Amino acid sequence: MTVSDDERLARATLSAIAEPGNALLGALVARLGALGAVAAVRAGAPPGDLVTGDRARYRLAEQLASWRIRLRAAAPDADLTVCDKLGGRLVCPGDAEWPTQLDNLGDARPHALWLRGPGDLRFGCLRSVALVGARAASSYGLRVAADLAAELSDRGWTVVSGGAMGIDAAAHRGALAADGDTVAVFANGIDAPYPARNDGLFAEMARRALLLSESPPGTHPTRLRFLVRNRVIAALTRGTLVIEAAARSGALNTATHARNLDRAVMAVPGPITSRTSVGCHKLLRDTPPARCVTNAAEIIEEVGQFGADLAPEPRGPVHPRDALEPTTRQVLEAIPARSGAGPAQIAVKAGVDLNTARSRLGILAAAGFIERCDQGWRLPRTRKGRRGSR
Amino acid sequence: MTVSDDERLARATLSAIAEPGNALLGALVARLGALGAVAAVRAGAPPGDLVTGDRARYRLAEQLASWRIRLRAAAPDADLTVCDKLGGRLVCPGDAEWPTQLDNLGDARPHALWLRGPGDLRFGCLRSVALVGARAASSYGLRVAADLAAELSDRGWTVVSGGAMGIDAAAHRGALAADGDTVAVFANGIDAPYPARNDGLFAEMARRALLLSESPPGTHPTRLRFLVRNRVIAALTRGTLVIEAAARSGALNTATHARNLDRAVMAVPGPITSRTSVGCHKLLRDTPPARCVTNAAEIIEEVGQFGADLAPEPRGPVHPRDALEPTTRQVLEAIPARSGAGPAQIAVKAGVDLNTARSRLGILAAAGFIERCDQGWRLPRTRKGRRGSR
Repeated sequence: MTVSDDERLARATLSAIAEPGNALLGALVARLGALGAVAAVRAGAPPGDLVTGDRARYRLAEQLASWRIRLRAAAPDADLTVCDKLGGRLVCPGDAEWPTQLDNLGDARPHALWLRGPGDLRFGCLRSVALVGARAASSYGLRVAADLAAELSDRGWTVVSGGAMGIDAAAHRGALAADGDTVAVFANGIDAPYPARNDGLFAEMARRALLLSESPPGTHPTRLRFLVRNRVIAALTRGTLVIEAAARSGALNTATHARNLDRAVMAVPGPITSRTSVGCHKLLRDTPPARCVTNAAEIIEEVGQFGADLAPEPRGPVHPRDALEPTTRQVLEAIPARSGAGPAQIAVKAGVDLNTARSRLGILAAAGFIERCDQGWRLPRTRKGRRGSR
Repeated sequence: MTVSDDERLARATLSAIAEPGNALLGALVARLGALGAVAAVRAGAPPGDLVTGDRARYRLAEQLASWRIRLRAAAPDADLTVCDKLGGRLVCPGDAEWPTQLDNLGDARPHALWLRGPGDLRFGCLRSVALVGARAASSYGLRVAADLAAELSDRGWTVVSGGAMGIDAAAHRGALAADGDTVAVFANGIDAPYPARNDGLFAEMARRALLLSESPPGTHPTRLRFLVRNRVIAALTRGTLVIEAAARSGALNTATHARNLDRAVMAVPGPITSRTSVGCHKLLRDTPPARCVTNAAEIIEEVGQFGADLAPEPRGPVHPRDALEPTTRQVLEAIPARSGAGPAQIAVKAGVDLNTARSRLGILAAAGFIERCDQGWRLPRTRKGRRGSR
């Protein structure tokens, strides 16, 4: 443990005295460390050269006054006790669980994260995607959010979102249904996640997943805090996917954060007759455009390691495999999508005997449907190259 | 009239003896002219240096044999008589009605076009967009095709498509409903447009719009002819919009022609759960991606003159104009979308008296909703720049 109790208490304090993402307090911490920054605020004496120019000095003085007022009211010990009682923890930079990708936020990096749930935040977010979108989602959007989240979970990817009704909740539910990892990032304290209508979901996530906030227990959500919270969702993940969004949805703000952080920006298309897809289509018309994605493989192609996770080309219903004799097709369909398998394994999955499997595998290989690999047989890897110009 | 009767007869002949788009016959015509090319085919004696290499010479001899067989069976006089009886005409390069943008097809340029209907092909296609898509379209696609065609018609743009059931027919019907110009390009003869189930539509188009084919009356459609026909749809227009397409739709072939001809390529997004939008999403994922469009303004921005036809940014329902007092909003809504207007005109349209209009215009200008222009008042032109990277 490299983070001392004093440091942890100082960071709990910092999370209480300024609005999240306040870059001025961030700069003070970067200069003096968390303990030094709290001491400087308490003394009302920041380094004289922290900012330059009259205007910036005036602004610092103003901010300092506000931090000092909130410092006098802050009760970080009590906050930590509440967190503890909830079975939660405060994760700080330097902790093993700290997701270092948040360092990309620079001075706007959270001072610490208040966490609930059994998941490991750092490990979970190594391969994670933000699934965000409208609160007033359509049935189409809700279905797509749940389906994509479940598919991503099946492939070992973690879903990150807010805690709102609509797309956020559908994405978490989809991940939970697939027994996947999912992380909810709140603009309010983790003691009373908002909105209360999702309480059942949040209770389930506290048992099986992760809830987190950069603000201490007792913090109420405000419009500004939602927007500032979005930068954490964008920074935690490899990319942000907007599933449904009206023209001025907060989800577009998360996408902007993702773009600024050089993370992938993706959008799910929808009917042009639907108000809740207007924001997605706006992203697809941006310069450069968000990447249009329609399934989990395409999402993973976008956020996966370079060259590793290519999505297969979509195939139409008239693909020649429809012309295959049923048993042969059964065998073909038993070949795993992303790895190889031996004849015995394929025979079991196809429900045929080993000799049948072997003969059909020969036919399929001759026709180019499958190819040999180390593990036995696999689908051909001759895909088109990865995205070019993005 | 710069096209002689002999030349016209020769071009009618050429349109009958080879499959459309045959670049070898095109090269022969480019070298010898239409009359010379027909004579050379009849004599079986093309210029010795038309092609080089044994392989190409062998191929030319093969083709020549096939052209000569069809030449013996050709009856261009009779074809012209049939066309005449239908009230049609044969339009040739050099005619005032010839759409010179077809010259971009090089040696694959049609030798002539068989036309029916009162429209002027060249004028009509100066500002035209191809609206293409699936035969087995969804109700969503049919509605979008008809709506976009009608909106384009309202703004003075001509719709070009094939004659198929589904998207093609819906686009023509939408344009006709808006009293717009629309052009159907057939893979078969204009004496018996295919499919017969669209006969009512074709009869209406022969009265009010345009039907055309590069093949003479009596020609039957084949799969190859449909694909080759697509290049004419792409070449006639400033851009091709795919409205709905399954993964292997012929509409994607038209889009490929458009891309190769350096025309705009656009796609309408749809639900990712719909098979008939898979082809559109494939285009949106291409490198470079097709442009995502959701309304007529966005289409026109893509195919319009540079800088002239910018689509407004989509606006959400919480735009500050909702906060305006009702009369002021009425006045704002009376400002034309794409030009300026004087106070009197605005007053009439808003249904208020001139003094009220003047005072509200002042308020709106002070708040930045409108600005002065030569004609009086207009909406501000501070839009984002036109597409960047495409």
